[in-house]
Amino acid sequence: MKDIYISDVAAFDEGRSFDSYFLVLAKQQRLTKTNKPYLNLMLGDRTGQIEGRIWDPADPRIAKDFEKGDIVKARGSASRFDERVQMKIDQLRVALPGEVEKSDLLPATTYDVDALWNELISTIGCFTNGDLKRLLLLMLEEPAMRAAYREAPAARQLHHAWLGGLLEHVVSLLRLADRVAAHYPLLDRDLLLTGVILHDIGKTRELSWVVGFDYTVEGILLGHIQFGVDMVNRAIDTLPGFPERLRTLVVHMILAHHGKLEFGSPKLPMIPEALVLNFVDDLDAKMQAMQTEYDKCEREGKSGEEMTGKVWSLDNRQLLHTRKWLAGEKK
Amino acid sequence: MKDIYISDVAAFDEGRSFDSYFLVLAKQQRLTKTNKPYLNLMLGDRTGQIEGRIWDPADPRIAKDFEKGDIVKARGSASRFDERVQMKIDQLRVALPGEVEKSDLLPATTYDVDALWNELISTIGCFTNGDLKRLLLLMLEEPAMRAAYREAPAARQLHHAWLGGLLEHVVSLLRLADRVAAHYPLLDRDLLLTGVILHDIGKTRELSWVVGFDYTVEGILLGHIQFGVDMVNRAIDTLPGFPERLRTLVVHMILAHHGKLEFGSPKLPMIPEALVLNFVDDLDAKMQAMQTEYDKCEREGKSGEEMTGKVWSLDNRQLLHTRKWLAGEKK
Amino acid sequence: MKDIYISDVAAFDEGRSFDSYFLVLAKQQRLTKTNKPYLNLMLGDRTGQIEGRIWDPADPRIAKDFEKGDIVKARGSASRFDERVQMKIDQLRVALPGEVEKSDLLPATTYDVDALWNELISTIGCFTNGDLKRLLLLMLEEPAMRAAYREAPAARQLHHAWLGGLLEHVVSLLRLADRVAAHYPLLDRDLLLTGVILHDIGKTRELSWVVGFDYTVEGILLGHIQFGVDMVNRAIDTLPGFPERLRTLVVHMILAHHGKLEFGSPKLPMIPEALVLNFVDDLDAKMQAMQTEYDKCEREGKSGEEMTGKVWSLDNRQLLHTRKWLAGEKK
Amino acid sequence: MKDIYISDVAAFDEGRSFDSYFLVLAKQQRLTKTNKPYLNLMLGDRTGQIEGRIWDPADPRIAKDFEKGDIVKARGSASRFDERVQMKIDQLRVALPGEVEKSDLLPATTYDVDALWNELISTIGCFTNGDLKRLLLLMLEEPAMRAAYREAPAARQLHHAWLGGLLEHVVSLLRLADRVAAHYPLLDRDLLLTGVILHDIGKTRELSWVVGFDYTVEGILLGHIQFGVDMVNRAIDTLPGFPERLRTLVVHMILAHHGKLEFGSPKLPMIPEALVLNFVDDLDAKMQAMQTEYDKCEREGKSGEEMTGKVWSLDNRQLLHTRKWLAGEKK
Amino acid sequence: MKDIYISDVAAFDEGRSFDSYFLVLAKQQRLTKTNKPYLNLMLGDRTGQIEGRIWDPADPRIAKDFEKGDIVKARGSASRFDERVQMKIDQLRVALPGEVEKSDLLPATTYDVDALWNELISTIGCFTNGDLKRLLLLMLEEPAMRAAYREAPAARQLHHAWLGGLLEHVVSLLRLADRVAAHYPLLDRDLLLTGVILHDIGKTRELSWVVGFDYTVEGILLGHIQFGVDMVNRAIDTLPGFPERLRTLVVHMILAHHGKLEFGSPKLPMIPEALVLNFVDDLDAKMQAMQTEYDKCEREGKSGEEMTGKVWSLDNRQLLHTRKWLAGEKK
Amino acid sequence: MKDIYISDVAAFDEGRSFDSYFLVLAKQQRLTKTNKPYLNLMLGDRTGQIEGRIWDPADPRIAKDFEKGDIVKARGSASRFDERVQMKIDQLRVALPGEVEKSDLLPATTYDVDALWNELISTIGCFTNGDLKRLLLLMLEEPAMRAAYREAPAARQLHHAWLGGLLEHVVSLLRLADRVAAHYPLLDRDLLLTGVILHDIGKTRELSWVVGFDYTVEGILLGHIQFGVDMVNRAIDTLPGFPERLRTLVVHMILAHHGKLEFGSPKLPMIPEALVLNFVDDLDAKMQAMQTEYDKCEREGKSGEEMTGKVWSLDNRQLLHTRKWLAGEKK
Repeated sequence: MKDIYISDVAAFDEGRSFDSYFLVLAKQQRLTKTNKPYLNLMLGDRTGQIEGRIWDPADPRIAKDFEKGDIVKARGSASRFDERVQMKIDQLRVALPGEVEKSDLLPATTYDVDALWNELISTIGCFTNGDLKRLLLLMLEEPAMRAAYREAPAARQLHHAWLGGLLEHVVSLLRLADRVAAHYPLLDRDLLLTGVILHDIGKTRELSWVVGFDYTVEGILLGHIQFGVDMVNRAIDTLPGFPERLRTLVVHMILAHHGKLEFGSPKLPMIPEALVLNFVDDLDAKMQAMQTEYDKCEREGKSGEEMTGKVWSLDNRQLLHTRKWLAGEKK
Repeated sequence: MKDIYISDVAAFDEGRSFDSYFLVLAKQQRLTKTNKPYLNLMLGDRTGQIEGRIWDPADPRIAKDFEKGDIVKARGSASRFDERVQMKIDQLRVALPGEVEKSDLLPATTYDVDALWNELISTIGCFTNGDLKRLLLLMLEEPAMRAAYREAPAARQLHHAWLGGLLEHVVSLLRLADRVAAHYPLLDRDLLLTGVILHDIGKTRELSWVVGFDYTVEGILLGHIQFGVDMVNRAIDTLPGFPERLRTLVVHMILAHHGKLEFGSPKLPMIPEALVLNFVDDLDAKMQAMQTEYDKCEREGKSGEEMTGKVWSLDNRQLLHTRKWLAGEKK
Repeated sequence: MKDIYISDVAAFDEGRSFDSYFLVLAKQQRLTKTNKPYLNLMLGDRTGQIEGRIWDPADPRIAKDFEKGDIVKARGSASRFDERVQMKIDQLRVALPGEVEKSDLLPATTYDVDALWNELISTIGCFTNGDLKRLLLLMLEEPAMRAAYREAPAARQLHHAWLGGLLEHVVSLLRLADRVAAHYPLLDRDLLLTGVILHDIGKTRELSWVVGFDYTVEGILLGHIQFGVDMVNRAIDTLPGFPERLRTLVVHMILAHHGKLEFGSPKLPMIPEALVLNFVDDLDAKMQAMQTEYDKCEREGKSGEEMTGKVWSLDNRQLLHTRKWLAGEKK
Repeated sequence: MKDIYISDVAAFDEGRSFDSYFLVLAKQQRLTKTNKPYLNLMLGDRTGQIEGRIWDPADPRIAKDFEKGDIVKARGSASRFDERVQMKIDQLRVALPGEVEKSDLLPATTYDVDALWNELISTIGCFTNGDLKRLLLLMLEEPAMRAAYREAPAARQLHHAWLGGLLEHVVSLLRLADRVAAHYPLLDRDLLLTGVILHDIGKTRELSWVVGFDYTVEGILLGHIQFGVDMVNRAIDTLPGFPERLRTLVVHMILAHHGKLEFGSPKLPMIPEALVLNFVDDLDAKMQAMQTEYDKCEREGKSGEEMTGKVWSLDNRQLLHTRKWLAGEKK
Repeated sequence: MKDIYISDVAAFDEGRSFDSYFLVLAKQQRLTKTNKPYLNLMLGDRTGQIEGRIWDPADPRIAKDFEKGDIVKARGSASRFDERVQMKIDQLRVALPGEVEKSDLLPATTYDVDALWNELISTIGCFTNGDLKRLLLLMLEEPAMRAAYREAPAARQLHHAWLGGLLEHVVSLLRLADRVAAHYPLLDRDLLLTGVILHDIGKTRELSWVVGFDYTVEGILLGHIQFGVDMVNRAIDTLPGFPERLRTLVVHMILAHHGKLEFGSPKLPMIPEALVLNFVDDLDAKMQAMQTEYDKCEREGKSGEEMTGKVWSLDNRQLLHTRKWLAGEKK
Repeated sequence: MKDIYISDVAAFDEGRSFDSYFLVLAKQQRLTKTNKPYLNLMLGDRTGQIEGRIWDPADPRIAKDFEKGDIVKARGSASRFDERVQMKIDQLRVALPGEVEKSDLLPATTYDVDALWNELISTIGCFTNGDLKRLLLLMLEEPAMRAAYREAPAARQLHHAWLGGLLEHVVSLLRLADRVAAHYPLLDRDLLLTGVILHDIGKTRELSWVVGFDYTVEGILLGHIQFGVDMVNRAIDTLPGFPERLRTLVVHMILAHHGKLEFGSPKLPMIPEALVLNFVDDLDAKMQAMQTEYDKCEREGKSGEEMTGKVWSLDNRQLLHTRKWLAGEKK
């Protein structure tokens, strides 16, 4: 079990000793000014990253065979360099399977994954469209997909970039899309919700989340839209009698969900359900990006009296926290 | 009372006589090939427009003093020219006040304006933010504004281009925004709904809807965003103790509601409420544009088996009617 | 057999009688000024289109049951209206199967389709990469695909918009790409040629060429890129041992062949073969568009002393015919 | 009185003692490597900025209660770190009111503010349009506005970013616009000059220049265009008989002065005076940006034989100094 | 001498006889509905264009050998077709040299060309820079260039599209640039004015104004910027001792005068004189386009109470006539 | 002769002594922390750049009079600072003419320049168009141009940025263009190849390659397109009887070779030869940029299992090495 996190170390006194479990994100051999080899590591856990230095790699207390991607247990002390905290490592060994939870080593959703999953499955259960219900249950209850869908992040860096982020994003969208569907009678609710559930399913192949979050080579070459369409087509092929036109519309919704060609959708939304899917997806991503920026300001102790810095994922605009700023007005 | 509408005339036999009330949208004197003067009129009612010709303007049965903008009663007969129906006019007089309803002469909402208005006012009545409630009621219950707000179209040509269109659009947005506010705890619901109610209030000055729908000169030079901000500022000036920061945020929401500089908003949305206002406004306009296109196809007897034509207000994309197309699949 | 073509009729004297086979591209009932019904047809053959009028649809010599898409034999006479030639139709019947060649009714390649096809197949036969050879032969020798690939146009309106246009475009590209592959040792020739052969294969589903050339509903919603990827994936699924990475690259080439996101490719070319495919495809389309414009000027009797009109498919630029203009210089 | 400036310190020997007045631009408490607290200050005067360090904040010679924005008198010595000069501070107290001129602490115009102001007022005095003359004098002679207008910078960073920069920019524009008005008889000179005087008046609220130059929160949310329009509307409201159409045109000129929607003007210039205002404003800003770059090269001792670096505010173009380069040609 | 102009004919009664001189802008042989040949002409003079029909080309009173570009004397009568006036021609002969002034046949400046020319030459005469003075006089006093420069239009369609338009535009710019040079001491006045005089000199080769105004083939392929640079380079080559750097700056000003790459300038302005040249050129073109639109409204009898239509050359914006609109306000 | 290169020094032990020849790319005097002057140099050879420090410039073993641009022989020792290797210099003298090859000091093509040149000249020798052959030989055999054309880089930083790069790029394009010309009968091969040979000839004046690779002032102000056109025009002026239209087309090809206005071509390609020139030039530059990136990855020991980093000159896309990646697939 892990009880010390990287976010704790910032407050440690210079030289204080500690040990903990980490994920090895990078490992490089370098030379000191006097040409002696040393190891420079980048270690991560779910709260952040810290540089680690092993000045004597030949020390018998240092494991010889660990690599990028391994989980290790390291002992050492805090040191400061240019205001940043580093870890000087004296002992290091590879962790045994089961010694530590993966969710301690990568950032993860703060929601209960089982509860989110149950909400997703029970929403599907209430579909009146039997074809779509069959399709979704077939895809999501396949064990490997079920595991991946529950664990995948929704992005590498932008919104919902944490374990379970995909599921969290989809469930938020399901609730929001359900409200919008109730507002516009024109909409086919089950088709819209199917689009919500499947639009980013290809991220389970586009992203890898074993050693930090990154794109796979296939993901960069083909993209999650393509993966999603392919998964849907293969699933439908196994469902006799699934209407061909319904397949076309489901695939269209996945293709068009980025809303514009220059955002990587090869087609514009041409049915109301595809239009709404693009809107709620975009809105939810932007609302989450705003919330993330406000949380960051909160952690940094900012008062809410000023605009935030420029937020890259929101066209470099600055933000204001409505409630805090209104509350700060002098009477 | 008006009982014959322009949309009826298309079906009339050549030469059939009729009379009705019309709004004079344009009036020009021209010469025939033999250099005799005649009058060419463009007449309108709530169902469309028709060209009218008066071959003998000196006839005593033709009023001398009518102008563009007048409501007239005209008698004549249907004639065809290049597949289009025209009206050959034999008699024409200016209508008396009260002889005909304005709503017969311009297209109007199909909803009950009183019901929409009551929903709007009672929504405001439930606000917990007393400042915003005071501001909105002050503005909307001022009699001239009340009349204009209930009658204005929401646009000249695009979405909700009919009498009562502004109110219809706002009430639809209120319901939608209320649903979104319930989904995101970050949002200040009353502030968001205030933005919904005020974002297009300047259209009551930007547009004129006396003789068809058109922009005023001031509307072209300044725009409804500017008018709306000005109205809000003047109203708040009369409300002692209204918080200055709240004023700033309300004005910001109006300024930013088009979402992008190139769409005429001088500022990007920088608070969550402004972001959501832009999204729901944009979504509702696009959903209404889709519905309008589907209705047009319906009227034209199209089957739903094919894509619509290119829709200018939706980036020239073609649309498909989900339900009709799915229903048309051969088993 | 058809012996009179629409392009011949322009030279006919007013009133000259003739008969021929046509494809019915459109059929509408209209009313004369005196409210009598008549039929307005748009008739086509491989040389162009002509309007046809049937003033007495009840005449027993006029078939009752023909529709848009039918092939008909019509007899009538040439008439002129506003400088344009029309056909006044006196007799019309639906043609019997086999009475006329389809290639007489739609514009078609001037090349020998069998020769083009043999060149394509023998090029594949010389591949050193056995996996790609297997894949291509599997796909192209499937009878329905073979028929469609030999017959499809390459576009609805722009370049190679004629029967066999796809095959003609692909074979031109094969030769050109082969030359480029010989120039750059970096290129994997077989992979590049595979991209050439498969990049537009989805047009066999995106376009229909039964009644003129048009997009299918599925084609508008999904696009030929998506169809092509799907066809390739299904074919590879039946080939045991086909390398997964090779599949990824073939699919990437199809996805990226438009070269830019705003042209509908969801990915930019990221391997040299995809880059070259995009260049030769774009170059060949533009060279063909230039040739088409020069041919049009030739037919219109233009001298080559002046620039052409603005060519829409080439960013509205005007063109000059190099050889003609140089030859026209006065010594 | 201040007699040592930050620009002087660069030339000081390591360790040389000095004292002077500074504006505190930032103040942060930090920890040394041995975890002792120290203060890190950013100090400014009109010639630039310098970092100051107080290694023993508990020293009784260091004031306890100073904050960001205070003017202080500090004594210490010059030290170098990574080629940059810092100030090691031994004594520090808050300055008494009047001890030092604000103009010594922030960069300021090199022109005589009174002379500029008199030119502005006397130009207005010569207006033949009494309404505009009344409006401008009412606004500018209001004491708080008068003070702000004489002191405000014209920008945070780009052109005229110094105290008095707004007034300097406006007077330069007045002269230039007067010349242009004399050239085009179409122009209403008084209206054009009114636009010049009022177009940036909202910068007195958009910017703050107490602690360096920065945007206010309200400035970021609403912008100087909105502030300017609001000020003009309120002023006109107090002028009985001011023509409404004239108000519309003055407001239009302020709204449209950035010339394009994507530059933050919600309307394009639609009257000649608004078009000219946009041109002269843009030209003067760019000429000033060029001059600033040439001055910088001059200070850095560049010869004029080469292009300048890329100038961010001029689309990253490089510049050449015409006269210097021509003069450098070898005969 | 020509005493009847095309603008007069609009008011003629049907059938009224007249004769006048015209420029033949186009000549086509066509067939009547009964297949008899007739000639369709487009005739022009400085006030506009009129269609002319010769129903019997074999009539001995009709010259046989006239062509597009010839000046002819025609006699005939006014007739009306679809509201437009045409000329039915009974007699036609080619005009003798000197029978009519070219300025009667193409629209021309309303200014005195000699006066404009003298102002241009005397401005050059006052240059203090002897090199530039020599260069300009050499170029402009070359007889063929002198004639072309005095006669050329400044554009085919947009601003100053009339004989003498180039000279008129340049002299207006000279005065304006002189005012701007007096305002900014940074500017080298003689260099700026040289840029003004030479920037469009290539239009004398880009445009032809013999038969209406049109681009030459070489003009479309190379453009007036390229021609201007070439002319300047050749002229300087004949001036021994002309400074090379001065040549570079003059050429740079011509290259950069459109201000942006996408407007056809291959370089951005990088010296102040080039920047100012681009501004005054752009401003003068836009002011002239505004004036042209106001003149058109004046001719059409519009009141000034409304916005103009959308003006294509001004980004489709609508305009308002300041003075007329202000004067129309009801007291 | 030079036997130690900068790329070798990275592997030297701290303090190891060596000497070699270098090009002085920059020379600055600075002060140490204790205010003693020292010299900071940037030294280059064909393998890269290294910082050099002379701590005692007054040492008699250090030459006094060397400048930026000189070739020097320096002796000193390797030292490390922040992971980067520097050279501490103890002795330095200016090299004698002929002591070292220029090609040792700047990066240069790996091809045999004589062979490339002979291929170029013999290609021209085979032209059937005598005018173009005369023109090209006249230009290229002029001794100064011959020397410059053989030595010039093709760019400062992007593709072919090495001595001989222009010639290498042109010969690659000649072969490629020859293949394309053989494919499209529409093309005038000699004209196309002439465009290839001349399109970048202006780079011999736009770039300087004496001290590293840089733009000349004239190059930045006018550009290589302008220089190329000017050189061609001057050469043709000396060739009596050269057809004017052929001149126009050659100049057009140079003007249009960047393909788009926003890339600095003032005209779009309007003849097939200009279109093809733009395509092959663009393709060759991009293929070379890809090859350069793959070579860099090779040198850095990357495996080919991952995408490269984002490549700036290819729109920031990432690349994959086709063959390496395919070869890496696990069976």
